[in-house]
Amino acid sequence: MFESILENILRSKPIVHCITNFVTVNDCANIILAGGGSPTMAHHRDEVEEITEKSQSLVLNLGNVHEVDSMILAGKKSNALEHPVVIDPVGIGVSKLRNETFKKLSQSIHFSVIRGNISEIKGIANEKGITKGKSMTKGVDANETDKVTQDNLEEVVAMAKRLSEAMDSVIAISGAIDIVAGKEKAYVIRNGHPIMAKVTGTGCMSTALIGAFCGGNPNNILEATSAAVAAMGVSGDIAFEKMERFEGGTMMFRMFLIDSISNMTSEIINGGMSIEEM
Amino acid sequence: MFESILENILRSKPIVHCITNFVTVNDCANIILAGGGSPTMAHHRDEVEEITEKSQSLVLNLGNVHEVDSMILAGKKSNALEHPVVIDPVGIGVSKLRNETFKKLSQSIHFSVIRGNISEIKGIANEKGITKGKSMTKGVDANETDKVTQDNLEEVVAMAKRLSEAMDSVIAISGAIDIVAGKEKAYVIRNGHPIMAKVTGTGCMSTALIGAFCGGNPNNILEATSAAVAAMGVSGDIAFEKMERFEGGTMMFRMFLIDSISNMTSEIINGGMSIEEM
Amino acid sequence: MFESILENILRSKPIVHCITNFVTVNDCANIILAGGGSPTMAHHRDEVEEITEKSQSLVLNLGNVHEVDSMILAGKKSNALEHPVVIDPVGIGVSKLRNETFKKLSQSIHFSVIRGNISEIKGIANEKGITKGKSMTKGVDANETDKVTQDNLEEVVAMAKRLSEAMDSVIAISGAIDIVAGKEKAYVIRNGHPIMAKVTGTGCMSTALIGAFCGGNPNNILEATSAAVAAMGVSGDIAFEKMERFEGGTMMFRMFLIDSISNMTSEIINGGMSIEEM
Repeated sequence: MFESILENILRSKPIVHCITNFVTVNDCANIILAGGGSPTMAHHRDEVEEITEKSQSLVLNLGNVHEVDSMILAGKKSNALEHPVVIDPVGIGVSKLRNETFKKLSQSIHFSVIRGNISEIKGIANEKGITKGKSMTKGVDANETDKVTQDNLEEVVAMAKRLSEAMDSVIAISGAIDIVAGKEKAYVIRNGHPIMAKVTGTGCMSTALIGAFCGGNPNNILEATSAAVAAMGVSGDIAFEKMERFEGGTMMFRMFLIDSISNMTSEIINGGMSIEEM
Repeated sequence: MFESILENILRSKPIVHCITNFVTVNDCANIILAGGGSPTMAHHRDEVEEITEKSQSLVLNLGNVHEVDSMILAGKKSNALEHPVVIDPVGIGVSKLRNETFKKLSQSIHFSVIRGNISEIKGIANEKGITKGKSMTKGVDANETDKVTQDNLEEVVAMAKRLSEAMDSVIAISGAIDIVAGKEKAYVIRNGHPIMAKVTGTGCMSTALIGAFCGGNPNNILEATSAAVAAMGVSGDIAFEKMERFEGGTMMFRMFLIDSISNMTSEIINGGMSIEEM
Repeated sequence: MFESILENILRSKPIVHCITNFVTVNDCANIILAGGGSPTMAHHRDEVEEITEKSQSLVLNLGNVHEVDSMILAGKKSNALEHPVVIDPVGIGVSKLRNETFKKLSQSIHFSVIRGNISEIKGIANEKGITKGKSMTKGVDANETDKVTQDNLEEVVAMAKRLSEAMDSVIAISGAIDIVAGKEKAYVIRNGHPIMAKVTGTGCMSTALIGAFCGGNPNNILEATSAAVAAMGVSGDIAFEKMERFEGGTMMFRMFLIDSISNMTSEIINGGMSIEEM
């Protein structure tokens, strides 16, 4: 599985244009490079259209709420060029500004992929009338009460599929159990380690990597996104093991996480991943 | 010592709202996570009040002089909610803009803790008329002539206590000898390693960690700040030893510094720290 | 070779004022510290002149196109004070904005050193009428077709010397083969490893390190720049070896790259470097 996905990235070395937040921008650039892409983190409104034109995909991150105009310019251009557009709705629900910014972006741009934690995705689903409930997000982390477990898995997958249909986007939900859903088909991936939540930006990095994988596979967004999510999960497993071997902590884990992406092969993914179609 | 301080953080997992500089923001977020908090690095003026409202403490960093309006909005809101507000006066004395910005902030916001190097703290003490002298700061590092030694320790502690009284803030001075001073009581901590000055942002990280410790212990600011400073120092000792074992340099030291915070327990702090009340 | 260059940095501990991009700013600050300098990353227009006045060199990075006014203020002040000014024309050729910004900067400021990849330097040479051709830059990485090889080396060195004369700047070209050219003399350095291109910001870091080396050696820009480039190359060799020993990837390589700069001596450089005068 995923052989051709990885080959396409290594062969085409897609340029990934990211308009992302300043907290995790360096990690995002490095994970794109590790995954075989070439990152360009330009966000000045006077150049984003030109940059996008020379790129193969676009990654938007709601953490950079200052740059909504640049995001819209780049997003519209990407849509016109039929480049994949991946959005990370970081912190949706924590402020009116973020909710309104997301709304504005989604009215102007078609997203190929939306990747967030379960609280962020539920926030969007509530907004679209797919689920009923009040967004409970307090910070940038998922709420305990929202978390995906074996018990609510079927229900969450069904929600993700409906949201995928409503938004015409692949929906990727990160957590202890990862879900990547199209309208009719979803992948459930059980890899990675809880320590990922103790490193800032593992979500942003996942989104950036999805941008690289989709940039190299623009006609196969569901599989490309699943492969990126699986690569992150398997790398998380490898990184945790190495971290323990060298008696490190969260920063050593981050190093080995990106290192493992840089050493990733389809053999390693296939050997390590636990994936299920639903 | 400090058992309950650490327990309170792990139990409450405080959300720490940081308006900080873009140089060290990633390290600050990661050290807050390592210390048991949850970082939110939002700085757009249209959302900072809402973010602060959902947080347990606020960390301001003068390195981000662009965001003074956001800092004032967030600081006033935090004061109203009685959340701890921690400020890092990075580079005070290097420019009129920073001096004026600090003045403006201190006129609008009550700081629970002010953490800086000795030159930065002396700059504030001079401004408040507590010491006489000319601020000699040339860059973001402390001046050689200002440094705290065994010889001037008593004098510096007395100055810090007076400044604590004048500002109604706990004063934390980082250096070869760390001082954390309230109006009447001060802790002197002799941990850490000179190599910390060869890594950018160890000061900012210390301030961020104080934000997490105070967020979990809002009624015990002096002890929470001392515990954070001691945790940094002990982690610096551990990190230096590990760095030598693996024949690394300054970046490996940084990794092990945050790693050690992520593995910190009150047993490790108590076993490693050299603390004295003055 | 280079003994006095390194000694001068360690003795004077130059303050290096950087106005650089937010993607790699942390790595740039850390490599300046590792190399013996003291970084100050201030970019607010109301303080850059004061900051530059207290510094020994200035590093500008076109990746931060938002701050052109600050760059011009700081650059003019540095020129007046006869401080070395080093520029990194990141992404020149990818957008009209970057081309115009570079033009504007070069009309206002004299650069001591221009460091870029071959595509960026060729872009400037084309603009100055030194070479004929169309800038082919698609992203922030050099184009395959531009790359310096044994076959075109003489031609590229001659171009770099002519550009050095036209701009009155030392020209540093990074790649598999590095070139540092004055008007009449050039150094060709064959160190480093292709994996450097898989880590974001190795170019920016190289520029920052040149800023530190020139800050400590303002009267010997060609040798200082060559020493910095050689130090980066030798550190790349050491870092790759260590990365393989610990079975790491691109992020471990980055750690050991800066670590090796922090442990650098003239003995290590001289023992490891492959340098040739042309």
